[in-house]
Amino acid sequence: MDLKEHIRDIPDFPKEGIIFKDITPLLMNPEAFRSCIAQFVEAYKDKGITKIASSESRGFIFGAVLAHELQAGFVPLRKPGKLPYKTIRQEFETEYSTDAFEIHEDAIEKGDKVLIVDDVLATGGTARAAVYLVEHLGGKVEALAFLIELDFLKGKEKLNGYDIMSLIHY
Amino acid sequence: MDLKEHIRDIPDFPKEGIIFKDITPLLMNPEAFRSCIAQFVEAYKDKGITKIASSESRGFIFGAVLAHELQAGFVPLRKPGKLPYKTIRQEFETEYSTDAFEIHEDAIEKGDKVLIVDDVLATGGTARAAVYLVEHLGGKVEALAFLIELDFLKGKEKLNGYDIMSLIHY
Repeated sequence: MDLKEHIRDIPDFPKEGIIFKDITPLLMNPEAFRSCIAQFVEAYKDKGITKIASSESRGFIFGAVLAHELQAGFVPLRKPGKLPYKTIRQEFETEYSTDAFEIHEDAIEKGDKVLIVDDVLATGGTARAAVYLVEHLGGKVEALAFLIELDFLKGKEKLNGYDIMSLIHY
Repeated sequence: MDLKEHIRDIPDFPKEGIIFKDITPLLMNPEAFRSCIAQFVEAYKDKGITKIASSESRGFIFGAVLAHELQAGFVPLRKPGKLPYKTIRQEFETEYSTDAFEIHEDAIEKGDKVLIVDDVLATGGTARAAVYLVEHLGGKVEALAFLIELDFLKGKEKLNGYDIMSLIHY
């Protein structure tokens, strides 16, 4: 299956000059969505993953399914003020702006083997923040999994030494 | 399994006087999370559901897994400006404020049998907006599924005539 057939280009979104990769056609297609999940499950099923950490909102879509399939806990990384319990926060830069994510302090335990899941690896800013938050709480980042990697933005350079898997490359 | 054991009360969040039901302990517990999904799958597996519609962000967590398990398409309902393609919008009132959701115009086709999934049924404002958006595009709302229903907020009264299932009641 060519997953790229289910990704739609949206010119000038969210800013002029950006071609946004719209994943909603893929999400609407059960065969395409299941193919993505199956590839991730195959890659990580024997890694002893105990937690999946994903950033809101689109990261939740893939992260939650992988948590279910791998029988791991699901840990949401959220924008400031959204998580109700005690949190730690990490700021980061994206392709478009500066932002921050928070994680609950009790979301990761020492020794947790964590898979970070998101829809897109772009500049690597959000992924780097996710790695920082997981490691700060004593978790080990086993790998990072993305549906799409925008190779030309060189996000991988911010994640040297980490195991990275992306199903679609541009 | 008593799912309530995995829900944490957070007093005065997001506003003074509100006791927020924090679902993150449940999400972190694979057995509890899988138990929820299994109950939903059992209820809807023979209903011919073709699409799952869920609102950001927490709705995505349950909706995406159900889309995967029921082999249905996943349709995100998002805050204004987040969806990149052509959208329609519906405003609604929540327990705390006025807000709006958008849906892609091509997300639902005439004849789609849609299950609306969210984490919490509170006043019913977001659920009513979701119903409106799905039906406006020609979909049939087969049922609405929630992890938690806050009975005292009487959200059900806004959803008269619809099939509603909630795993936890307060």
